[in-house]
Amino acid sequence: MKPLPRILTIKPYQPGKPVDDVKRELGLKSVIKLASNESPYGPSPKVCAAIAKAARTVNRYPDSSCYYLRKALARHVGCRQDQLFFGNGSDEVIVSAIRAFVGEGDEVVMARPSFLIYDISTRVVGGRVKAVPLKDFRYDLDGMARAVGPRTKIVFITNPDNPAGTYIPEPDLVSFLERISPETVVFLDEAYHEFVRENDYPDTVRLLEERPQLIVSRTFSKMYGLAGLRIGYGIARPEMIDVLTRVCEPFNVNAVAQAAALACLKDQPYYRRIIREMESQRQLLFEELTAIGLDYVRTSTNFILIRVPGQASDFCRGLLHNGVIVRDMNAWGIENYIRVTIGTPAENKRFLKTLKLVLKKINTQ
Amino acid sequence: MKPLPRILTIKPYQPGKPVDDVKRELGLKSVIKLASNESPYGPSPKVCAAIAKAARTVNRYPDSSCYYLRKALARHVGCRQDQLFFGNGSDEVIVSAIRAFVGEGDEVVMARPSFLIYDISTRVVGGRVKAVPLKDFRYDLDGMARAVGPRTKIVFITNPDNPAGTYIPEPDLVSFLERISPETVVFLDEAYHEFVRENDYPDTVRLLEERPQLIVSRTFSKMYGLAGLRIGYGIARPEMIDVLTRVCEPFNVNAVAQAAALACLKDQPYYRRIIREMESQRQLLFEELTAIGLDYVRTSTNFILIRVPGQASDFCRGLLHNGVIVRDMNAWGIENYIRVTIGTPAENKRFLKTLKLVLKKINTQ
Repeated sequence: MKPLPRILTIKPYQPGKPVDDVKRELGLKSVIKLASNESPYGPSPKVCAAIAKAARTVNRYPDSSCYYLRKALARHVGCRQDQLFFGNGSDEVIVSAIRAFVGEGDEVVMARPSFLIYDISTRVVGGRVKAVPLKDFRYDLDGMARAVGPRTKIVFITNPDNPAGTYIPEPDLVSFLERISPETVVFLDEAYHEFVRENDYPDTVRLLEERPQLIVSRTFSKMYGLAGLRIGYGIARPEMIDVLTRVCEPFNVNAVAQAAALACLKDQPYYRRIIREMESQRQLLFEELTAIGLDYVRTSTNFILIRVPGQASDFCRGLLHNGVIVRDMNAWGIENYIRVTIGTPAENKRFLKTLKLVLKKINTQ
Repeated sequence: MKPLPRILTIKPYQPGKPVDDVKRELGLKSVIKLASNESPYGPSPKVCAAIAKAARTVNRYPDSSCYYLRKALARHVGCRQDQLFFGNGSDEVIVSAIRAFVGEGDEVVMARPSFLIYDISTRVVGGRVKAVPLKDFRYDLDGMARAVGPRTKIVFITNPDNPAGTYIPEPDLVSFLERISPETVVFLDEAYHEFVRENDYPDTVRLLEERPQLIVSRTFSKMYGLAGLRIGYGIARPEMIDVLTRVCEPFNVNAVAQAAALACLKDQPYYRRIIREMESQRQLLFEELTAIGLDYVRTSTNFILIRVPGQASDFCRGLLHNGVIVRDMNAWGIENYIRVTIGTPAENKRFLKTLKLVLKKINTQ
């Protein structure tokens, strides 16, 4: 058995611990997970009904064209139907771009830290990663533009960024794009775009009209709360969509996810309420963290980077043993920070209470 | 925009027409689809209940380890838990093997015709396809063994075969394996294995114990009727599973599919009834086709190749305009044959009635 040598050098992605695993391992009854930037709410009653209806015909292969969802999403996004590509989560939009554009020895430019899938998938196809460190938890666009060379096939930009939570304003993005060759794909990962309220956040659907090199990816996993169903999408010009379609399996998006996503689009009032609540909880967390005296990165998303005293791993363990799962950012190369997803009001209250408890324990040691 | 040159030479997979498309295009009220080897039955009531329950927590990412399903499936299959790999349909098991083992200029040996995904995915990674024609609708294992060279990374064997429906008995498979270098992966695609009743069908779970080069893939799409949910799996030795896991996305199998598949395993009596019915319907079709005087390939699966007079495309169109969707095998390089999925008793009756109608029309022209 001889896999490609590069495959054996890849360290697989470590997902956040599922709640059930933590309960099993620590013998805890009540655990809250604020570790994967998921929505704290299950699907709306209308979405549940759509799932139950779709369940009855899962013996049939999914519609590989995503006919009904494509129509509704094009209207929702404000693009043409032939500008959409659907994936098994937006992860699949990312890896499809890599498979279509990156060959052995080609380069991909990204930030450090950034989403591990960019890095892993580039290595799987034999590409080389050039990572440009964040500066003050923001993209160093100047450094990234300088990192792009003749063999750079894709530049990945997460906007707003994960894990920082900061965003790139439109003027900065446009200046950056003017410096990049039109032969290099610029992949704008907008998994968290629904949470951004700032007016200068880029309108990328308009920007890509004149830029065939752009791919914008979005997802139903975060604000729409369909992470478990796996559905994301790419927006680009039709010639780009055609290329992405060639490298992915024909039935990549399951039928239940298609039905659920369509129902989400039709149930906007439910999701607007969720966004409003997240915003007010985010504000509350800002105020509470300031009051406690902990530094944090001012986020535009549904998660927040918080600087903790001592080892972040100890801090995370303290939270975990009290039933609160968050992410230790050490694994991402950011020391002394944890990343916390904004949950329901009750979850955030419990998080803050547990946070104070762990802080007190550390201070009295 | 410069995708890898090889990508632009790929002709994307053409899936069978969904029923809704045909209804829309032809203005038909009642259409039956016997084109994609799907189960004609929706999920069992217990599976529906499992889907509805899983729907309530789809805001959470799926369990990337498939913990509960893995435990139950290992018991069902008769292997250890670390011998299983789950995919977004067995398609993903196939492409993961290709991504892990096939680099630019490497070769993959397969039959002609065979499942188009083998061919497309090999081209996507820059591999070369060596295709060995079927002989009398059976695998030419001798020809395939001779086709394997030093650059051959994978040999694909569909057993039972699609589209022929025939199978390779264990002694023939074992003799073949003895001729293949242990460094070449032999991928045994058993998507239809639940339908085979013959005693000499290979017990591949036992065979792979001593053969680290083997990957066996199976699916919940066919007999278990979960095609719309996308879940398949690979069985191999743990070191092979480790390799496959490195090249796929961490949340590739959605949470609803995991729950549904687990419920299928627990509801065996329901599925045993479905297999028994399919067997008796298959027998009925054999007898009816013989009575009508049409040649067919004696199948071990839930679909059947039938030789039709005149152009198969005309014949398919005749069936289609009467609301019966089947596959024209011309696209697969088999002239004058159609492939028909075995449906419910009512669907098979309608198919036979329509078949006679179209035959009569052709004979009186």
